[in-house]
Amino acid sequence: MSRVLALCGGVGGAKLAAGLADVVPSGDLLVAVNTGDDFEHLGLPICPDIDSTLYALAGLNDVQRGWGRCDETWNFMTCLGELGGPTWFRLGDRDLATHVWRGARRASGASNTQVTQELATAMGIGCQVVPMSDDPVRTVVVTDEGPLAFQEYFVGRQCQPAVRALEYHGAESATLQPQILDALRSPDLSAIVICPSNPWLSIGPMLAMPALRKALQKGSAPVIAVSPLIGGRAVKGPTAKIMRELNLPTTAAGIARCYLPLLSTLVIDSSDAAQRDDVLAEGCDAIVTDTLMPDRAARRRLATVVMDAVAGD
Amino acid sequence: MSRVLALCGGVGGAKLAAGLADVVPSGDLLVAVNTGDDFEHLGLPICPDIDSTLYALAGLNDVQRGWGRCDETWNFMTCLGELGGPTWFRLGDRDLATHVWRGARRASGASNTQVTQELATAMGIGCQVVPMSDDPVRTVVVTDEGPLAFQEYFVGRQCQPAVRALEYHGAESATLQPQILDALRSPDLSAIVICPSNPWLSIGPMLAMPALRKALQKGSAPVIAVSPLIGGRAVKGPTAKIMRELNLPTTAAGIARCYLPLLSTLVIDSSDAAQRDDVLAEGCDAIVTDTLMPDRAARRRLATVVMDAVAGD
Repeated sequence: MSRVLALCGGVGGAKLAAGLADVVPSGDLLVAVNTGDDFEHLGLPICPDIDSTLYALAGLNDVQRGWGRCDETWNFMTCLGELGGPTWFRLGDRDLATHVWRGARRASGASNTQVTQELATAMGIGCQVVPMSDDPVRTVVVTDEGPLAFQEYFVGRQCQPAVRALEYHGAESATLQPQILDALRSPDLSAIVICPSNPWLSIGPMLAMPALRKALQKGSAPVIAVSPLIGGRAVKGPTAKIMRELNLPTTAAGIARCYLPLLSTLVIDSSDAAQRDDVLAEGCDAIVTDTLMPDRAARRRLATVVMDAVAGD
Repeated sequence: MSRVLALCGGVGGAKLAAGLADVVPSGDLLVAVNTGDDFEHLGLPICPDIDSTLYALAGLNDVQRGWGRCDETWNFMTCLGELGGPTWFRLGDRDLATHVWRGARRASGASNTQVTQELATAMGIGCQVVPMSDDPVRTVVVTDEGPLAFQEYFVGRQCQPAVRALEYHGAESATLQPQILDALRSPDLSAIVICPSNPWLSIGPMLAMPALRKALQKGSAPVIAVSPLIGGRAVKGPTAKIMRELNLPTTAAGIARCYLPLLSTLVIDSSDAAQRDDVLAEGCDAIVTDTLMPDRAARRRLATVVMDAVAGD
């Protein structure tokens, strides 16, 4: 039974998941991944956050580009463009194998959970990685230009339209992935870690599932989140921009508010140390440490801080 | 309206189609391609003969390997294998764009004819290229080990089982592609060219369609075939092996018998010049010339010989 449950979105969160996999015994770690960004493209089922997480856990992620697989080539994409196909969503030759094989397995009846576990095993990943649900949940970004499907907002419009609200279609009725529910109900669960992913785009779809929210409220295991902000800015992605658009302060306290009252502890970056008291004032503990994860050592170090905090709780 | 109709299978036939495209005004040439080898793989619709023909006509074919696209890379395939996916059917990164885009266009309602014409246009091909039918026809190779689907025989088993008979499932009821029927019915049609493709695996599925057979019988345009044998052997592929297994002589006369009584003229290779009288004895004309097409000049030369024969008919 899993002792640590990590809630994980895309690239930033995946780094901490990889760090946790380095310091938590593989049988004790369950990584639950956002599927609100999933969509079908060219007939292929694309699960951006699952893939980012798998690639990071397997050490196959491209560190320079910040997404996709390392040692990637783009001949498929070039030829697709020459044939008149769409090129707005970049699919590398190596990455494409994941999508095509997922599509083939799904078509033959395998669930997204099954396929994700098969992919994880094939990539040599020791811990459990599961989608938050096998039912479709779709994040819709309500902007000043109207509602946009997630990829339309994120890739198609490069996050430019101002966000007014987020909707998670299907989340209310989606069944929480059973391994996640089991972990949450288990007396052995020692911590729930909310990885430094975008609270609205990556963690929001998970918390929108009533079963997850309820289990977190009832559970006795501490919920510890790592703020995705460093010096009031996101390392990557539109977190700070969205906070401004939603009239939230782009501070650690602003992040704490996203997860309260579920949150026990927020880990904030050293550059935001001055905001520690503001976090405490929100009603949760605060830990100050370096949260940037440029390499494996940094990921491991941050994961150790998180696990030490849990142990000392 | 098309003045020359070429019936074309895979790689060998595609070379002559490319030669014809070099010497026949583009508006006058219609290339009808075998679809009996088509199959679905990894959820993608694969049309091997259409693709070989398109790549050859566009000059994108790999001359060394003999199939697929030039400047190809194999990162998709490598990663697919690492994920546990099937690697028996080799899909290059560039080639994959054709299959994925075809799949997406088909899924959005486009017919195989439409997609083929879109691909041809995108590749800069001037002549018309059409599948023999938009209805599924599937070649089944009846072997001493039982019936095998075409790709199972051709790629999976490398043509090793002995062939007892060929079946073309769906051919009897398949609707002949309308442009082909129009061309065959047109008084302007000056020739039907049967390209040097395998008579059983590539041309057989077309001739198994009653509408094509009937139109060829009724038509006044001469039918001129180029023998795929050179010195009693196929340049590539199992033509001679199949002829032996079907107890046919691996000679020009053996090829002529495949297409009689439809055939007006058989073009045979210089190395088979001694078999000329045998061909004449079968009841059709014979032209002796070099039929190997190692380069564009050779393709063009052979196409010129074929068209001259038609003009002199």
